[in-house]
Amino acid sequence: MKPIIGITANYIDDDKFFMNLGLGAIGQAYSALAIDYSKAINHAGGIPIIITPTYDTEYLDSIINLCDGILVSGGNDVNPLLYNKDNNSKVGRVLKIRDESDFYLTKSCIEKDLPLLGICRGLQVLNVVQGGTLYRHINTDKFLDHSAANSYKSLVSHYINIEKYSLLYEAFQKTKIGVNSFHHQGIEKLGNNLKSIAESRDGLCESIQMDNKKFIVATQFHPEMMFEDDNLYLEIFKLFVNSCKKN
Amino acid sequence: MKPIIGITANYIDDDKFFMNLGLGAIGQAYSALAIDYSKAINHAGGIPIIITPTYDTEYLDSIINLCDGILVSGGNDVNPLLYNKDNNSKVGRVLKIRDESDFYLTKSCIEKDLPLLGICRGLQVLNVVQGGTLYRHINTDKFLDHSAANSYKSLVSHYINIEKYSLLYEAFQKTKIGVNSFHHQGIEKLGNNLKSIAESRDGLCESIQMDNKKFIVATQFHPEMMFEDDNLYLEIFKLFVNSCKKN
Amino acid sequence: MKPIIGITANYIDDDKFFMNLGLGAIGQAYSALAIDYSKAINHAGGIPIIITPTYDTEYLDSIINLCDGILVSGGNDVNPLLYNKDNNSKVGRVLKIRDESDFYLTKSCIEKDLPLLGICRGLQVLNVVQGGTLYRHINTDKFLDHSAANSYKSLVSHYINIEKYSLLYEAFQKTKIGVNSFHHQGIEKLGNNLKSIAESRDGLCESIQMDNKKFIVATQFHPEMMFEDDNLYLEIFKLFVNSCKKN
Amino acid sequence: MKPIIGITANYIDDDKFFMNLGLGAIGQAYSALAIDYSKAINHAGGIPIIITPTYDTEYLDSIINLCDGILVSGGNDVNPLLYNKDNNSKVGRVLKIRDESDFYLTKSCIEKDLPLLGICRGLQVLNVVQGGTLYRHINTDKFLDHSAANSYKSLVSHYINIEKYSLLYEAFQKTKIGVNSFHHQGIEKLGNNLKSIAESRDGLCESIQMDNKKFIVATQFHPEMMFEDDNLYLEIFKLFVNSCKKN
Amino acid sequence: MKPIIGITANYIDDDKFFMNLGLGAIGQAYSALAIDYSKAINHAGGIPIIITPTYDTEYLDSIINLCDGILVSGGNDVNPLLYNKDNNSKVGRVLKIRDESDFYLTKSCIEKDLPLLGICRGLQVLNVVQGGTLYRHINTDKFLDHSAANSYKSLVSHYINIEKYSLLYEAFQKTKIGVNSFHHQGIEKLGNNLKSIAESRDGLCESIQMDNKKFIVATQFHPEMMFEDDNLYLEIFKLFVNSCKKN
Amino acid sequence: MKPIIGITANYIDDDKFFMNLGLGAIGQAYSALAIDYSKAINHAGGIPIIITPTYDTEYLDSIINLCDGILVSGGNDVNPLLYNKDNNSKVGRVLKIRDESDFYLTKSCIEKDLPLLGICRGLQVLNVVQGGTLYRHINTDKFLDHSAANSYKSLVSHYINIEKYSLLYEAFQKTKIGVNSFHHQGIEKLGNNLKSIAESRDGLCESIQMDNKKFIVATQFHPEMMFEDDNLYLEIFKLFVNSCKKN
Amino acid sequence: MKPIIGITANYIDDDKFFMNLGLGAIGQAYSALAIDYSKAINHAGGIPIIITPTYDTEYLDSIINLCDGILVSGGNDVNPLLYNKDNNSKVGRVLKIRDESDFYLTKSCIEKDLPLLGICRGLQVLNVVQGGTLYRHINTDKFLDHSAANSYKSLVSHYINIEKYSLLYEAFQKTKIGVNSFHHQGIEKLGNNLKSIAESRDGLCESIQMDNKKFIVATQFHPEMMFEDDNLYLEIFKLFVNSCKKN
Amino acid sequence: MKPIIGITANYIDDDKFFMNLGLGAIGQAYSALAIDYSKAINHAGGIPIIITPTYDTEYLDSIINLCDGILVSGGNDVNPLLYNKDNNSKVGRVLKIRDESDFYLTKSCIEKDLPLLGICRGLQVLNVVQGGTLYRHINTDKFLDHSAANSYKSLVSHYINIEKYSLLYEAFQKTKIGVNSFHHQGIEKLGNNLKSIAESRDGLCESIQMDNKKFIVATQFHPEMMFEDDNLYLEIFKLFVNSCKKN
Repeated sequence: MKPIIGITANYIDDDKFFMNLGLGAIGQAYSALAIDYSKAINHAGGIPIIITPTYDTEYLDSIINLCDGILVSGGNDVNPLLYNKDNNSKVGRVLKIRDESDFYLTKSCIEKDLPLLGICRGLQVLNVVQGGTLYRHINTDKFLDHSAANSYKSLVSHYINIEKYSLLYEAFQKTKIGVNSFHHQGIEKLGNNLKSIAESRDGLCESIQMDNKKFIVATQFHPEMMFEDDNLYLEIFKLFVNSCKKN
Repeated sequence: MKPIIGITANYIDDDKFFMNLGLGAIGQAYSALAIDYSKAINHAGGIPIIITPTYDTEYLDSIINLCDGILVSGGNDVNPLLYNKDNNSKVGRVLKIRDESDFYLTKSCIEKDLPLLGICRGLQVLNVVQGGTLYRHINTDKFLDHSAANSYKSLVSHYINIEKYSLLYEAFQKTKIGVNSFHHQGIEKLGNNLKSIAESRDGLCESIQMDNKKFIVATQFHPEMMFEDDNLYLEIFKLFVNSCKKN
Repeated sequence: MKPIIGITANYIDDDKFFMNLGLGAIGQAYSALAIDYSKAINHAGGIPIIITPTYDTEYLDSIINLCDGILVSGGNDVNPLLYNKDNNSKVGRVLKIRDESDFYLTKSCIEKDLPLLGICRGLQVLNVVQGGTLYRHINTDKFLDHSAANSYKSLVSHYINIEKYSLLYEAFQKTKIGVNSFHHQGIEKLGNNLKSIAESRDGLCESIQMDNKKFIVATQFHPEMMFEDDNLYLEIFKLFVNSCKKN
Repeated sequence: MKPIIGITANYIDDDKFFMNLGLGAIGQAYSALAIDYSKAINHAGGIPIIITPTYDTEYLDSIINLCDGILVSGGNDVNPLLYNKDNNSKVGRVLKIRDESDFYLTKSCIEKDLPLLGICRGLQVLNVVQGGTLYRHINTDKFLDHSAANSYKSLVSHYINIEKYSLLYEAFQKTKIGVNSFHHQGIEKLGNNLKSIAESRDGLCESIQMDNKKFIVATQFHPEMMFEDDNLYLEIFKLFVNSCKKN
Repeated sequence: MKPIIGITANYIDDDKFFMNLGLGAIGQAYSALAIDYSKAINHAGGIPIIITPTYDTEYLDSIINLCDGILVSGGNDVNPLLYNKDNNSKVGRVLKIRDESDFYLTKSCIEKDLPLLGICRGLQVLNVVQGGTLYRHINTDKFLDHSAANSYKSLVSHYINIEKYSLLYEAFQKTKIGVNSFHHQGIEKLGNNLKSIAESRDGLCESIQMDNKKFIVATQFHPEMMFEDDNLYLEIFKLFVNSCKKN
Repeated sequence: MKPIIGITANYIDDDKFFMNLGLGAIGQAYSALAIDYSKAINHAGGIPIIITPTYDTEYLDSIINLCDGILVSGGNDVNPLLYNKDNNSKVGRVLKIRDESDFYLTKSCIEKDLPLLGICRGLQVLNVVQGGTLYRHINTDKFLDHSAANSYKSLVSHYINIEKYSLLYEAFQKTKIGVNSFHHQGIEKLGNNLKSIAESRDGLCESIQMDNKKFIVATQFHPEMMFEDDNLYLEIFKLFVNSCKKN
Repeated sequence: MKPIIGITANYIDDDKFFMNLGLGAIGQAYSALAIDYSKAINHAGGIPIIITPTYDTEYLDSIINLCDGILVSGGNDVNPLLYNKDNNSKVGRVLKIRDESDFYLTKSCIEKDLPLLGICRGLQVLNVVQGGTLYRHINTDKFLDHSAANSYKSLVSHYINIEKYSLLYEAFQKTKIGVNSFHHQGIEKLGNNLKSIAESRDGLCESIQMDNKKFIVATQFHPEMMFEDDNLYLEIFKLFVNSCKKN
Repeated sequence: MKPIIGITANYIDDDKFFMNLGLGAIGQAYSALAIDYSKAINHAGGIPIIITPTYDTEYLDSIINLCDGILVSGGNDVNPLLYNKDNNSKVGRVLKIRDESDFYLTKSCIEKDLPLLGICRGLQVLNVVQGGTLYRHINTDKFLDHSAANSYKSLVSHYINIEKYSLLYEAFQKTKIGVNSFHHQGIEKLGNNLKSIAESRDGLCESIQMDNKKFIVATQFHPEMMFEDDNLYLEIFKLFVNSCKKN
């Protein structure tokens, strides 16, 4: 049987949006996930299932037991207090339920050496779980502006340099690839046991990997938005799904 | 291990809504599901996983293999052509991908006698799969208006009478309960092998059950929106989840 | 000391409106009341205090003890199930908390013979508390359309005929006055011990009074919106406040 | 009998918002208050009543006579001319009626030694009444940005250090607690007879107390938004309500 | 010197619209008039001046003294109570200040035999001043729907038949012309001393004239929106302006 | 007879706003003026008439002949090219028709020594007509921010110091008054024959006067928004209207 | 060389929409055409060029000379006066420039026997040019509602029956096909020399053909929206383009 | 025969805007072009045809064969990666399809020496095609702000100085003209074989010309928006169209 890949989802409490589409009723919250994630896992040979964000760790344990790998998807900003900074108006909306849900799953994967792929927020969660810190808003002098908010999902916004001895290189077989860019935060201090395996021109970390694990990798860019326009970007999902196969 | 319950999700292609929340990029579609469904399954003793709507029947077969039961959730209107009526301006948006995905899963459950719970659209899908027809818009003289669009999710809008020898009665142990009401369509001609097991005052079918199956039941109302305010409504989920347990 | 008049308030759970004004935060509900009510009571010689809608009957008992009279103000539609009709899409949003709060206060006033003035929704609550019923939406052939939604608050929209031996006549000393009109529901069947003391041209009840009580009166129109432009309309508030004076 | 606590309310003159909800008519202004305030007072053992903002000092005197304590709630910015600065585009909307109403009540409490709790704007009003000044907009180099506008009401945004010999410490029994943060102004020069009893990491005053009074305390943060998620925050309301009890 | 023509204007109290354009401040009301009126009068040889709507009859008397003719322009619906009908939800917003202002000016013109041209609302005002009545909303079986709300200002929507011995015929020298159509009300019962001088195909009155006056004429259509595209429509303004010349 | 005062008006080409109010049709432009101007002139003893903005100088000459004084009102920014600067994105919308109309009238008043009162934009027009220049956007280090965009029309935002031997002093009989403030541009270089007769704390010119003329005065603040709340501000209108009286 | 196919375009005068996208400036009108038309012509072997709507018949003559065939595309409603009915509020916006432009081109094609394909509005234009009439709004008892406004562009909404000896049958080689449906008007009386070659279930004309011409055909449905999902619908474009080939 | 001029168009994928106008259906993209371009070419003696943006180079080759000249119109920003810079949040939306379409046409014109006129984006495309670079956002200290976003299309925002021996001078016969200004990007490094033939006061390149070609010219300003108000601006179109005439 194909590996089962659990994908974490967004938590959205705007009932009016859904009611305008003729869906649901006053007082409902939603889990939502871009379909690109499921498609990428499916095309890479896994069975994608979506995980509802929750405070219920018993449910999350069941998911960990059920799944052969976890994909922590993009979404809201991580609460800055989790890396010992204060919240401010430049920080996007922080969702406690998603923080707790993703942190529990990420820690569980590390503990059990279950393969984990983090994308965008997933990379930031992994870094903070390991004691790293984030820039709360990177539109500063120090770094280029990484938020190409006006771009189509698969548009290449800049290039990254990939470390040769890394899982990213193993996937793409290239030391330089173009990436899309939809983030306003990024890694400041790298977390423990993590190494940076790709960087943008301006030196911002674009991908990390954890040592001595089967597959714990995260990217700041969104390969799931790009693979339909360029097959290359499916390779990272293939490597991840293969690492999830039971022996 | 607890039964795994797959829940079908909405398909939403309004990328602007999500971008306004700081999520995703131009060109993305989403799967979204009210968290109440997952909570209800979880509280009833199952492990909820969300299924991405898709045309890929191989993926849906994997899901059928993985799951111990399927919940077909509420959402967009079923394409009227599927019950031999024409589309018109009173019909809500029809989504081909969701129709195909839900119809395939519903047919598979019937074929394999896999427990199935249909809610709102789920009831309508089950009826059409079995050759039944729907009223395309029930705000007519014949029936009361069932769309209490201005109500809180758990507000009781009317009462229903439940057949005594039915799975609904088995769950609720009552012949009359109050229900919420958020639908503008309803069953006109009942599908094959289905029986109506509950009705509103004005005679509209509010719940159906398939004969000679472990558990193929559907409701026009939304018990998942009500159970947190009144435990009674969890009973139908408990009966469903129990019927999903492997022997 | 002047009589203390408790005024019931609206319950509003749209946090975005208030945040757009720079007020409050995500997740807050509000009580809100048109200032005209407080002004009218104040000008009529009472001390207005606003009551927060609540399920907490202990709090409401304290309010009843504290106050010398209660004004049940206008607002959301009464849940039709409370007069044995079903909810439908023509009914405005029903708020359980406000229904319970206003019904408890109205019943308490009747029981304790505490003076009560009901305005618009307040009239409808009083009628339903006494077993009466309402038209759920009066834009029908039977009655004139009473919702002059495009009008300034004090604009006279039609005239009413007042019963001579009634508290309304006692207040206004006239058998015919002009009134504003902002309601889409109205009294169908009069409740027990209530009598209609004013009617519009088309025969809809515009004011009720309870027998054998110090002052239990309600109006379908809004005198509090009119008194600043025409002193006449203050008279009903003066009569009410005077009836609240402790002997 | 429980202490009666008067709570000041917002003044809102946007009639369109309320009309969109089906409430009121053209030309109406409203008083509105987050229900959290009433709930907190109620849970802490007081009877909350809401005060309508007004220029009528006779009404305010009646309220002062009626109440055992006053809570000055959050809301619009204080007119900068009241602390001898000019208005500018960074200042939010100033409402003369609310300024006059809150200033009169605050001065009356100080004069009569009636217990007073100020929250957010309430702290700023107390400081200006005593001759202090405010930063008109604190998103500057000097202080951290204190406006976590994207956060849920109870989300902890930063920590504060509490003075040991203070009423805040008496309430919380801690020298460090987490607080939410929804303000863009803050105390620049402390008013007469006030002392700062809590500070944020960046040195902004987060709470003040007046000397030689029963209970005249104010906080920049919003404990009323937090107590339902964490009981700790109710303690300040309990201390306040207890101080309001008549001997 | 050219004749001075006073034109009545709309009263608008939506301060937000103007503030969005960078104009004015909170709390302001506006007078506004389509520039087409002034242009038409100017091209026809008059000096257009705009009259501010007001309750101040002394000001209106000064205007009557100053002007050689009055144009009562289009705008809000006349209050139905002025012709003994009740207001309802099909009636547009009624503005008391404009009703009083226009009625005073119209009555003054009739009394002093000052030339008067009424356009759209101006026709309706003239008819009601003379004791006539209006259909409150003409989208009924009896008459064609006269509100071509989606049309460009000068688009001909239907044709009218003009009485031969009338001032309209004197102006246009035709018994049939095309007209634009932007009204949802119309004349039901003709006022005293008025005669209908033009009708649409479906028999609705499109123009009226008062007997034994120099020039008291009104049209339901808007010639001022049409004259720039077709010179013909300027003729009615020329006839009006000429009639205003002092002897 | 009272003096006739012509007031210049805004030019607005947003037909959708008016159509949303049920007024006019596609393709119409409007002249609009805050009613406060007319009220102030009326209360000060003049007869206000509103002038339609136009390129037609013959019409403007007729107006000049008809009027005893001209009030150039607030509104859109003056085209920077008129004082030899380039347009940029900080400049508000420039309207050629209003610039030409106001400049022609202002020049005519100067030439014929007809009394002129300029308010806000009116002050800026007068200064540019006389060869002065403007700051295109004054939210800079040099000056305080003068745009209190969130304020009620009559709210005092700062104080100004008035020259003793000036018409402003003659009107107000004070050397310091409070003023509202709704402008983002201001005088940089004073025009010929103009003198600054009032300044804000930060040294921005708040009023100008032309030498050797009966009454050519302009203010950066809006006294017409303030006189209803404080009679003082009517004095400048009284002085203006008196200066317009024919001998 | 491939045939050159001129396609008529929409005329849009909403400059704000384009400015919100960062395009153009105040005062601009646009021509716009769904790209599906160009794609369909291109895939069918023609060279699509877009024609700007205009009153300039000399330009249109040049286009007729240049092109080997004309496609009159969908868009705004035809002015009802062109088929001797009055405009009303159910009619969508009528654009004189597009009516004149499309009518001239259609007449020219008929006169010169230049191949013409009409789609939706194109069918209606052809019918009116030939003296036929239209239903102004077909949501009536007589016909099914043909406006599936909530549907994806290629969704089949109903079926049509095709005449065997017709160009439509020649293209599709079927007597029944499914079609999308986005129109609220339709043919009432067929124009001269036109025959109906397809009908919906409810008897509305869905396609017309002109006798004795090379290729003058029009459809009420939109094959250009469907061909990418189903090749079948390209066949009508192929037949059209082939008929345009020069001999 | 007159020269055929192909004009490139915008690509717009906002189907909701068009559906709100009653046009098209869900899932459609549009080509759109300001009508001013077609009008200017038409008035200058050419036959304008609009080119659909596409990836299909075979179609573009047909267009090149068909046309006697190409006008590359204004629109979205060029992808910065095409001149070796990274995308960021100050860059407007980049459209790959339009970049590829315009670049292919521009290169073809250069290669075949086909006359080319570039306007705004057209100038930027030409510069990048020739290896030049752009400022991604010119609102900096170095240059004046060139985006007069609030201006009417033909309003002169600044002046430019024109090189004497240039095609621009040949067209306008002046060394200084006023221009409108609607761009936030501009030429940084001039491309190969291009020379700057006009500059703004602040030294930004406003027009370029390619050496040794019949007519390859581009302007940063928009003469097509100005020619109807001032004939002068038609001259550049006349020179362009004349250069397109076949010998």
